[in-house]
Amino acid sequence: MIAIDWGTSSFRAYRLDATGSVLDKRSAALGILHVEGGRFAQALQSQVQDWIEAGEQPIVMSGMIGSRQGWVEAPYVPCPAGLEAIAGAMKEVQWLGRRGFIAPGLSTRDGDGVPDVMRGEETQILGVLDSLPASGALICLPGTHSKWVEVKDRRIVHFATHMTGEVFAVLREHSILGRMMSGAATDADWFDAGVQRAQQSSSLLHHLFGVRARGLFGELPEGAAASYLSGILIGHELASARSGERPVYLLGSSELAGWYQRALRQVGQACIALDPDAAVRGLFILANRLTGR
Amino acid sequence: MIAIDWGTSSFRAYRLDATGSVLDKRSAALGILHVEGGRFAQALQSQVQDWIEAGEQPIVMSGMIGSRQGWVEAPYVPCPAGLEAIAGAMKEVQWLGRRGFIAPGLSTRDGDGVPDVMRGEETQILGVLDSLPASGALICLPGTHSKWVEVKDRRIVHFATHMTGEVFAVLREHSILGRMMSGAATDADWFDAGVQRAQQSSSLLHHLFGVRARGLFGELPEGAAASYLSGILIGHELASARSGERPVYLLGSSELAGWYQRALRQVGQACIALDPDAAVRGLFILANRLTGR
Repeated sequence: MIAIDWGTSSFRAYRLDATGSVLDKRSAALGILHVEGGRFAQALQSQVQDWIEAGEQPIVMSGMIGSRQGWVEAPYVPCPAGLEAIAGAMKEVQWLGRRGFIAPGLSTRDGDGVPDVMRGEETQILGVLDSLPASGALICLPGTHSKWVEVKDRRIVHFATHMTGEVFAVLREHSILGRMMSGAATDADWFDAGVQRAQQSSSLLHHLFGVRARGLFGELPEGAAASYLSGILIGHELASARSGERPVYLLGSSELAGWYQRALRQVGQACIALDPDAAVRGLFILANRLTGR
Repeated sequence: MIAIDWGTSSFRAYRLDATGSVLDKRSAALGILHVEGGRFAQALQSQVQDWIEAGEQPIVMSGMIGSRQGWVEAPYVPCPAGLEAIAGAMKEVQWLGRRGFIAPGLSTRDGDGVPDVMRGEETQILGVLDSLPASGALICLPGTHSKWVEVKDRRIVHFATHMTGEVFAVLREHSILGRMMSGAATDADWFDAGVQRAQQSSSLLHHLFGVRARGLFGELPEGAAASYLSGILIGHELASARSGERPVYLLGSSELAGWYQRALRQVGQACIALDPDAAVRGLFILANRLTGR
């Protein structure tokens, strides 16, 4: 089969054998925003023509490819939702006699009735269900828009998104804080100081100005300011999202996941790292469900 | 005398009589960032040459003109500080036989030992001291960087800055939230909805993503999204900064101050509006102190 993780900015393709092992993989800067005029079939063939001609099927996709801006919209499935509901809401695309299947995203509503959405993460979670206790687990997926997901009895029950990564990026690039920063967020001590700052009273909006004031007073080196800001933002996310006694399952392969692990440890939160190749595994499970295997 | 409120982006000059009444006023887009090569004396004369030639003195200035990027740095005075400490730390500038005086900013440290700064607001507060109870008052000065200031016995005891206005601007201009917004933040009902949202549990970072999700679900009109975002941010500032039973004194002339008044009312916080021309009054009081009147 062919598994495609197709997001806003990147395209990742995997050729899998009947046991789900990866035979080959490819990636390209062919996210849905970079595919002109909706020519998704052509984009897909440009990347994996040879696999298709070799007879690999089915082709299963997840991520923003199923959004309104993607190939075909696969509407959000409301939580709670597990494998059956997600597989049942997949959308089929056909071209030149070939067939592809696109996974839907999920939606939920929080205590205030405000909606929340994910697209792509649901497939990753399908890929790790076997590693989670049936009694329930809280999963954190760090990212531009971090997700905190409650799973119980093999279903995604609820989730909450935090705009942490994007807020970091816009403050870094476009606010007065960015002007006092140089380099990337790589200073562990200052990251820790930011996490600690976030655990204390007062609001994020005040803590952000503190970054500026510490800089003005020569108490925050330029090369450390991005790390301090990152720690403050992730620390505020943890203060709101973490769950007391229960361990947090962390799902992410990026360097960012390492920073989350560090922050969780600092606030005394047990943390279990999950297999970061969960997306491929989730697509394999969806493919098996579709073909009745 | 001549009173100058000289900030980062704007220049405001007032000619005052011996009682502090404004005889004339002028303003220009001649903030310190727009004065090339440190030619502050020339910039000042270009605006008020005729007043100086008419013999007006002293010339008293406050705002970013006293910062490291300004005419002469008037270092931050640590809190607590009142009229005496502020007047005592003013810096004199001389050019062509003329003299001007520049007010310092103030600094403080919060419970975590993190510094905070203001520059310009201290002069506004000197201008309203007579309207405040000696027993103590909490003043809110809305703005790009909002200030919440504790005053007691005619001295500024402590303050905290919130980066609310700047965070709104960068999210509006540069984040995914901005793409789903049209128009200015003028919708009162959606502003109220944002303030209410901020009073509920969970973090600002989650509430921000809710703006996006409500838009995706067609539950937030494009023309209302900026108002909702503004309400969320100001609501989070109030949740952190307001002070239970005591009324909040509100100091600001901008439209923004009206939104703060509305938000304070919504969260059940008594609010007293102060004279928004406080900066001129504060400069007049400083001038009198300097000349021994």
